[in-house]
Amino acid sequence: MIKDVTVHDVRFPTAEAGDGSDAINRGDYSATYVEVITDSGVTGTGLTFTNGRGNEITCAAVRALAVHVIGREPEEVAVTSITADPQLRWLGPEKGVIAMAAGALINALWDLRARQAGKPMWRYLAELPAADLVDSVDFGHISDAITPGEAREILEQGAIGYGDRLARLENEGFPAYTTSVGWLGYPDDKVRALTRQAVADGWRAVKMKVGGPLDDDVRRAGIIRGELPPGALLMMDANQVWDVDQAIAAMGRLAAFDPYWIEEPTHADDVLGHARIAQAVAPVRVATGEVAANRVIFKQLMQAGAIRVCQVDACRVAGVNEVLAILLLAAKFGVPVCPHAGGVGLCEYVQHLAIFDYLRIGRSLDGRMIEYVDHLHEHFTDPVTVVDGRYRLPARPGYSVEMKPASIAEFRFPDGPAWR
Amino acid sequence: MIKDVTVHDVRFPTAEAGDGSDAINRGDYSATYVEVITDSGVTGTGLTFTNGRGNEITCAAVRALAVHVIGREPEEVAVTSITADPQLRWLGPEKGVIAMAAGALINALWDLRARQAGKPMWRYLAELPAADLVDSVDFGHISDAITPGEAREILEQGAIGYGDRLARLENEGFPAYTTSVGWLGYPDDKVRALTRQAVADGWRAVKMKVGGPLDDDVRRAGIIRGELPPGALLMMDANQVWDVDQAIAAMGRLAAFDPYWIEEPTHADDVLGHARIAQAVAPVRVATGEVAANRVIFKQLMQAGAIRVCQVDACRVAGVNEVLAILLLAAKFGVPVCPHAGGVGLCEYVQHLAIFDYLRIGRSLDGRMIEYVDHLHEHFTDPVTVVDGRYRLPARPGYSVEMKPASIAEFRFPDGPAWR
Repeated sequence: MIKDVTVHDVRFPTAEAGDGSDAINRGDYSATYVEVITDSGVTGTGLTFTNGRGNEITCAAVRALAVHVIGREPEEVAVTSITADPQLRWLGPEKGVIAMAAGALINALWDLRARQAGKPMWRYLAELPAADLVDSVDFGHISDAITPGEAREILEQGAIGYGDRLARLENEGFPAYTTSVGWLGYPDDKVRALTRQAVADGWRAVKMKVGGPLDDDVRRAGIIRGELPPGALLMMDANQVWDVDQAIAAMGRLAAFDPYWIEEPTHADDVLGHARIAQAVAPVRVATGEVAANRVIFKQLMQAGAIRVCQVDACRVAGVNEVLAILLLAAKFGVPVCPHAGGVGLCEYVQHLAIFDYLRIGRSLDGRMIEYVDHLHEHFTDPVTVVDGRYRLPARPGYSVEMKPASIAEFRFPDGPAWR
Repeated sequence: MIKDVTVHDVRFPTAEAGDGSDAINRGDYSATYVEVITDSGVTGTGLTFTNGRGNEITCAAVRALAVHVIGREPEEVAVTSITADPQLRWLGPEKGVIAMAAGALINALWDLRARQAGKPMWRYLAELPAADLVDSVDFGHISDAITPGEAREILEQGAIGYGDRLARLENEGFPAYTTSVGWLGYPDDKVRALTRQAVADGWRAVKMKVGGPLDDDVRRAGIIRGELPPGALLMMDANQVWDVDQAIAAMGRLAAFDPYWIEEPTHADDVLGHARIAQAVAPVRVATGEVAANRVIFKQLMQAGAIRVCQVDACRVAGVNEVLAILLLAAKFGVPVCPHAGGVGLCEYVQHLAIFDYLRIGRSLDGRMIEYVDHLHEHFTDPVTVVDGRYRLPARPGYSVEMKPASIAEFRFPDGPAWR
């Protein structure tokens, strides 16, 4: 039985160094950290990533949702009781603070299940029967794009060749790219040095932030491209700063540096805008998803042919169940999934999703990469392992976002020593 | 100078009576009530409507945003400092809790300005120079649909015939419809009696909730249509409960009752879904907007031809500035605006928006109606006046959402006597 849900407001003072700075966001990387405490002695942990101030708001939202969990057996919690609460739904619906809070809480419930099964999340998910996975998905408002029957077929197909794919990942690891080289807050010299180091470390795919003054973007793109070996991929990320026509014009200049994708070229809600940009900038791919609110937005991005890369986030949307819906939509529409990571614990989270997707849903590594950012991993008990630009398979039970007690104590806001 | 921002969590126990019950939402009508306190002695008031539990979350969000306001002169507050805060934006972006909180706070700033000018909000807005109104709008991410120059032209056109339109409203009032007859929680007899009473009270346009079992919807539609005189309008509201194909099928049966519009036929984020439904159910109009998150969603609904009625809410989006953007988009695309009301104080708010829109932007009453719901008006110091199914022009300075101190004290959660 679930005895209690505890919520910690944890914030890391990253803003000063310019880490994580882009065209829109500058903050202290923070986490709404959730523990689902049972009387069996096993605790499930989940988190949602926020950007500094306001983390107390998502914490309050988790506390409001906890009523659907406390006092229940973990297996009897209906996820829709959390996502479709007849009072709290109004605060989204299914978006923003309330979805992010649902993400932390629902992920903690899945972490609990995986720990009880003694399996890392990717394996726990990958070994579930197709029917159980289908039952976990809310097909409401996406049934015009994918039906439970189609989902089941995708998942049953996913059993074929499973062992071969798993062996491949165990041998090779999962492809990744790094976003650590080109934050907007970094001076040119730092960008050059970081790119050079990334290449030396084995990275062959790097991402830079764009969306500052265009001349600066062009200059920085030249620096990074100049450091990359032939064939290496350069991704660009505008973090929604452009209007539709601005995006098209900017990519006209930035195309000279052969970007693999342009990420968040405009407002995350603008399905039609992304579709127009996608047509205009091809063959450069349009990527988005880190702040796409829910399965309904992803459905439309795919229906409209607006994205060729699906960058689902593990906790922006309402947790594993909502991610499952999105992975299935991506498979149906043939869109590769390259999950959003960085932040706090997002690399730890999404490695499981990408691996599971490959093993059971997408079944290809073509165009698949997991984002990697090299900060804050030291605060987790089971941090990611990345070797030669590839994620190694996590082996410990659960969803890998358990924080070290000392880190929680040090960075808890506002009473931790780091903030006093 | 703004000395302080106070926030009250006010909740009315409406859930028990079934008032406000629809296919998705059942709650205690609540308000995040905001006072912007100045050293000049004038206080601006704003609120955002929520649905019971979770009102503490929007209260927390207002407190987080207040940093951009406290210590400033009212006229020097940049609204984008609130809506594009580089840390808090992540929690939306521009949607859900953080947008609703911004709505309450920004509306309070506008209330303050109108009070200082000694004018009701509709008049204050209608008498502003076109350039000032244009400067109030964030054209970011909508410039592909409307430019500042086009907006200015619309507003300058709006000065022509202004006096005639004002005289007409002073004589006739503003057309309205009532939603009080057909909440899903009401038994048939109550629905019949309420409809009969509404007709006796002069209403010629009424709205019913649908989205329960379809046979029940059909039966209730028959009861209401049977009580209405010839030519009266019957609107239907599904509150997002249907999937796209379900909506089309349901309207196939409900069309027999000659609905004027179908409101929220599917998920509020589903622009493409609304567009498909709009094509399928014509000539029945598709209406939506009460939970449409921001100007970017409205832009797309209009670009896609997905709506023929724009039901903007006064505080779901980020306040007067965001509403202005949406009214201008509606004018550009020729979509009539029928604002969403009901809830707590929404009728009080939106009367100003509809009147301003008619006087200065839309310039027509054709297809324009303000929603009316007859509850909770007694808690406001300047409640709406509706006579023979029409809103009379509010005359007192401000935005009309100031609550009586006794009501705040009685219904404040959790410490007010109503909740103890």
